Amino acid sequence: MTVELRDGERIDMLYRDEVKIIQSRDVFSFSLDAVLLAHFANPRNGGRGTIVDLGTGNGAIPLFMAHKVTGKIIGIEIQPRLADMAQRSVMMNELDDKIKIINADMRDVFETLKPGSVETVVSNPPYFAATEQSHKNPNQHYAIARHEIKADLALVTHTAKKLLKSGGHFFMVHRPDRLFEILDALRANNLIPKRVQFVYPKVGREANIVLIEAIKNGRLTGTQILPPIVTHHEDDTYRDEVWAIYEGRS
Amino acid sequence: MTVELRDGERIDMLYRDEVKIIQSRDVFSFSLDAVLLAHFANPRNGGRGTIVDLGTGNGAIPLFMAHKVTGKIIGIEIQPRLADMAQRSVMMNELDDKIKIINADMRDVFETLKPGSVETVVSNPPYFAATEQSHKNPNQHYAIARHEIKADLALVTHTAKKLLKSGGHFFMVHRPDRLFEILDALRANNLIPKRVQFVYPKVGREANIVLIEAIKNGRLTGTQILPPIVTHHEDDTYRDEVWAIYEGRS
Repeated sequence: MTVELRDGERIDMLYRDEVKIIQSRDVFSFSLDAVLLAHFANPRNGGRGTIVDLGTGNGAIPLFMAHKVTGKIIGIEIQPRLADMAQRSVMMNELDDKIKIINADMRDVFETLKPGSVETVVSNPPYFAATEQSHKNPNQHYAIARHEIKADLALVTHTAKKLLKSGGHFFMVHRPDRLFEILDALRANNLIPKRVQFVYPKVGREANIVLIEAIKNGRLTGTQILPPIVTHHEDDTYRDEVWAIYEGRS
Repeated sequence: MTVELRDGERIDMLYRDEVKIIQSRDVFSFSLDAVLLAHFANPRNGGRGTIVDLGTGNGAIPLFMAHKVTGKIIGIEIQPRLADMAQRSVMMNELDDKIKIINADMRDVFETLKPGSVETVVSNPPYFAATEQSHKNPNQHYAIARHEIKADLALVTHTAKKLLKSGGHFFMVHRPDRLFEILDALRANNLIPKRVQFVYPKVGREANIVLIEAIKNGRLTGTQILPPIVTHHEDDTYRDEVWAIYEGRS
C-alpha cells in the first residue's frame, strides 16, 4: 500500500520496523508518552470489543496497540490535518479493518458510539491547563495537542466514563504535577485507579510522566504501584528498558 | 542517664549509635517505615513550633527526628506499655526538653493541645482495615499498632487537620494498596498532597510503602513525585540508600 506524503512529512518506524507512522515536525509527532501508554495499556480479554483513543493525534496509540488486541480501535481526533495523517498511516500499515479514525470533537463521539458500549478507553490528552499562556505553543496544531484548549481533564474523563461499560478500563498518560487534579476528575466520574506507574527521566529525579489504569465503578482498595521506569541515562540517551519498548522486546 | 529495662526489652542504636531506642519483640519494635518517615519528614523553618506524632509507638519517630528540628515534638500513644517504653527512651537519650510523650487516645489530644496550634503532624498509623481479620496479630500490642482498631485513616487525618495551622504540613507513611482511600481521607480534611515518594522492596517489584507530605489548605497543582527508593537487594540485604538513612549519612 502506497500513500502520499505531504510537505514536511516523514515516515518513522517502530517495533523492528513493523509499524510505520507518518510524522511531521510542523504539525505533530508522537512522543515517548504515547509509546509508554500503548505499552502500559493491556486491555482485558485479549482486547476484544471496542477500544477508543480520545485525541489520537497522528494515530500513534492505535497503531502501536493494534498487534495486541483482537477488537477494533477507534481513534478520535479533532484536528482534520492530524486525523488525515492518522488515516494515511492506518492505510500504509494495512490496518483499515482494525483501526478507524474519526475526525470529530470528542463531545460528538456519541453520534457514532453508544454510551456504555466500549470495553477500553485510552487517552494521551493535552497536559497543560489552557490558562498556562506562558508555555503555549505558537503553532496551533501543537497548542491544541498540548494545552486544554479543545479538551480538558473534565471532558476526557467524562467522555471515557460515558463510553465505558461498567467494569471497563480507562488507560491514561499524564503529568504527575497534576496528579491530584487527575484523581479528582477520575473519581468524579467513578473511574477508580487500579494500577499506577510513575516514569522518571533519570535516576534520582522526580517523576515526569504517570500512567494510570482506572476501572469504571471499580473498588477503592488494592491499588498497585508498578515498578518505576527510568527513561534516560545521565548522557540523555535512552535506557535499555525504553529501547525494549520501542523495539517491541518488552 | 540510666533507665531500667523490662523483661524482653533490648536497646537498639541508630544514626551511628547517637540514638538509642528501647525495643521489645513481645510488645513493639519500630520498622523501616518509621525510619523512612522520619527521614522524609522535613518540617518547614527548621522545625520550629510544635510537631505532633500521632501514634508514636515506642517513640521511634520523635527520637529519629529530634536532631533536625528546633521545636518540641509531642508523641501521642494510646498503649500505656508502649508510651512507657517511649518515655524511658526519651530519658535515656536526654531528650526530655525536646520530646514529650503523652499516653492518650488521639481523640483526647485537644485536652492538651489547642486546635490550629501545630506546625507539623507526622504519623505512621495502623495500615490494615480492622475488618482484615485474617491478618490480625494475636498479640494485642501489635494488633493495635497495625490494625485500625483504635484509630483509622479517618480519625488520623481528621485529628491532623484539626491540630494543624493553615499551611501546616502533615507527613504520613502508609501502604500503596490503600492509596486512594488515603487520598480521599486527606482531601476530605483539606490536606492536599504536595510531595509523594514510593518505596519498592526490590528492583522490578511493586511499591509496598508510600510517603506523603500534605499541606493543610494547600493547592492541588504542583504535586512532586520524588525519586523511587528501592530498599533491598535480591538477596534480601538492605541497599546502600537504606543504610545511609539508618546511619544518618543521607
